[in-house]
Amino acid sequence: MSAGSVEPPTPYLRVDLGRLRTNVAAAADRAAAAGVAMRPHAKTHKCPEVARLQLEAGAVGLTVATIGEAEVFVEESGAEDVFVAYPLWLTAESAARLRDLGQRADVAIGIDSVEAARHNGALLEGADVAVLVEVDSGHHRSGADPADAGEVAAAAVEAGLTLRGVFTFPGHGYGPDAREGAAADEARALTAAVASLRASGLEPDVVSGGSTPTLAVTDTGVVTEMRPGVYVFGDAQQWELGVVPPSSIALVCRATVVSHAGGHLVLDSGSKALGADRAAYATGWGRLPAYPDARVVQLSEHHAVVDLAGAPLPALGTRVDVVPNHVCNTVNLADALWVDDGGGLVRWSVSARGRNS
Amino acid sequence: MSAGSVEPPTPYLRVDLGRLRTNVAAAADRAAAAGVAMRPHAKTHKCPEVARLQLEAGAVGLTVATIGEAEVFVEESGAEDVFVAYPLWLTAESAARLRDLGQRADVAIGIDSVEAARHNGALLEGADVAVLVEVDSGHHRSGADPADAGEVAAAAVEAGLTLRGVFTFPGHGYGPDAREGAAADEARALTAAVASLRASGLEPDVVSGGSTPTLAVTDTGVVTEMRPGVYVFGDAQQWELGVVPPSSIALVCRATVVSHAGGHLVLDSGSKALGADRAAYATGWGRLPAYPDARVVQLSEHHAVVDLAGAPLPALGTRVDVVPNHVCNTVNLADALWVDDGGGLVRWSVSARGRNS
Repeated sequence: MSAGSVEPPTPYLRVDLGRLRTNVAAAADRAAAAGVAMRPHAKTHKCPEVARLQLEAGAVGLTVATIGEAEVFVEESGAEDVFVAYPLWLTAESAARLRDLGQRADVAIGIDSVEAARHNGALLEGADVAVLVEVDSGHHRSGADPADAGEVAAAAVEAGLTLRGVFTFPGHGYGPDAREGAAADEARALTAAVASLRASGLEPDVVSGGSTPTLAVTDTGVVTEMRPGVYVFGDAQQWELGVVPPSSIALVCRATVVSHAGGHLVLDSGSKALGADRAAYATGWGRLPAYPDARVVQLSEHHAVVDLAGAPLPALGTRVDVVPNHVCNTVNLADALWVDDGGGLVRWSVSARGRNS
Repeated sequence: MSAGSVEPPTPYLRVDLGRLRTNVAAAADRAAAAGVAMRPHAKTHKCPEVARLQLEAGAVGLTVATIGEAEVFVEESGAEDVFVAYPLWLTAESAARLRDLGQRADVAIGIDSVEAARHNGALLEGADVAVLVEVDSGHHRSGADPADAGEVAAAAVEAGLTLRGVFTFPGHGYGPDAREGAAADEARALTAAVASLRASGLEPDVVSGGSTPTLAVTDTGVVTEMRPGVYVFGDAQQWELGVVPPSSIALVCRATVVSHAGGHLVLDSGSKALGADRAAYATGWGRLPAYPDARVVQLSEHHAVVDLAGAPLPALGTRVDVVPNHVCNTVNLADALWVDDGGGLVRWSVSARGRNS
């Protein structure tokens, strides 16, 4: 850190700008080489500065999860094209917000049922808002059966909505040795969805898929657009899944050693800083780059208890970096990212933090 | 909800003011009847209005986890006595903040080692800040061995700090059938800690313990002060542990049914609204008061997938309430609590949200 730059109190989120830039460029290059559009998911970073890096690297627009996120990125990052990749069920109020947004940017939303197509279509009458039909490719969260995509799309068109295409999230690629299978499921589901649209006499402009685990193995003969999110930072989930090497992880929570109780390392990076995520395959509540064999064995709101696997305990007061399990939820806890640009720390605002609706 | 009051978009946190008042009063009455002081932990609610209810009900002061929380509650709730129940390792900056706070309120902090006593003592020279020695009663997080409490306390006194007493957090009472055992462990550890202090010629003014699970079974012959947090709201953890009946739970996340994909109920209350906490004993990622047999079987950032155990699916667009697993982390995600006072919804600010340092 350069002389004169002020470090915030721990725990705080620290971004390595060089790694962030490299991650953004690598994914952009991969998409360009495959001839597919890049529409990164901004829910991961919630930060206009990161969005600008993505747009400068050639992203055609941004993906977001909520109307509130869309508003922030149109307002603060100059995004001209935002896709709310979520099966929204609109109210009069949220429809009015979308209508307003549609006058300032290209806006699309997700739908996954005939009912939602009719309901949202009625509320969006005359608005400049497009839709993509979500299909389930195996994650079994939201999304219509691919065979029903045509019926949903036709209902949307009948309700006066502009059909842009189809999308899916192959979230079941988050698992050990799961990404190739999930990518194949994604290709099958999207192919079936496109066939279903065509059987209804409709043609998609966009066939959208992708996630960080499946990014490298997505069938670019099927998708026209990718929506990865986590790739900008990486996290312990991606590390443990073998998707991202620890040397590429661009965000850590910097913590202080506050206790040696019981011969363990106790850090001040608890679940209110790291997030409480722990997937079934995770080996703990976060990983330590400086101690690859260590595990966070206990996490409470302001304590992370670390088993250092026999390494000598760093002294009380030492700063230690922790890679969170799931960076999207980590960033959503923080008001700021502290970005190491090689010359000191710069504060970037997490402007869309907490924008859940 | 009364005519004219405006409901925020889902997902949002909704508080039943009647239940909140009842919970605050019941715990205050229990402490008064037992002759112990009540010092509720404000990390649960992070909300000055809730703190004021606790202080009005006779709390001697507040417990907090960070200096930032202490600052908020002294500033915004009129708290005159705050205890940072955490083994702080101070820096020059955080010591200056504590020193400043000590001029406006009675302030105490935790320490759990001789090193921390010396380090913090040097940084707090001349400041009006007291200390309590933390001991481990079986949760194995932070805290000195009770037998070492006297040595730590003596180091604090030698470093110029004012000794207030000893404290512990019996967090291992969070488990099925664990609270009686944890309460007994707490009593043993605190008794041993007091004996250790006396062996060093020191006498504690305060012997502090308690948590929401152990509240009803704490040995009030040992503790002079209790620090429960979750009791104000309750949550699905307390429900599943049998500590709090669902009819007493005062905070829910109100969500909207956005999808029926796969025959499941899909709500917009994901981990960015509920928090991702799932203890080993939890049966899911939250509970639904209107459907006691239902379980949140899948949680992602903006989706909660619910298995309704055969109940008919409520229609798309229906509002459904979810009790989060761990309310402390839930509240820390929100900027506001929407409080149903019987006549409509009032907005209370979560002023200490994100104050992790």
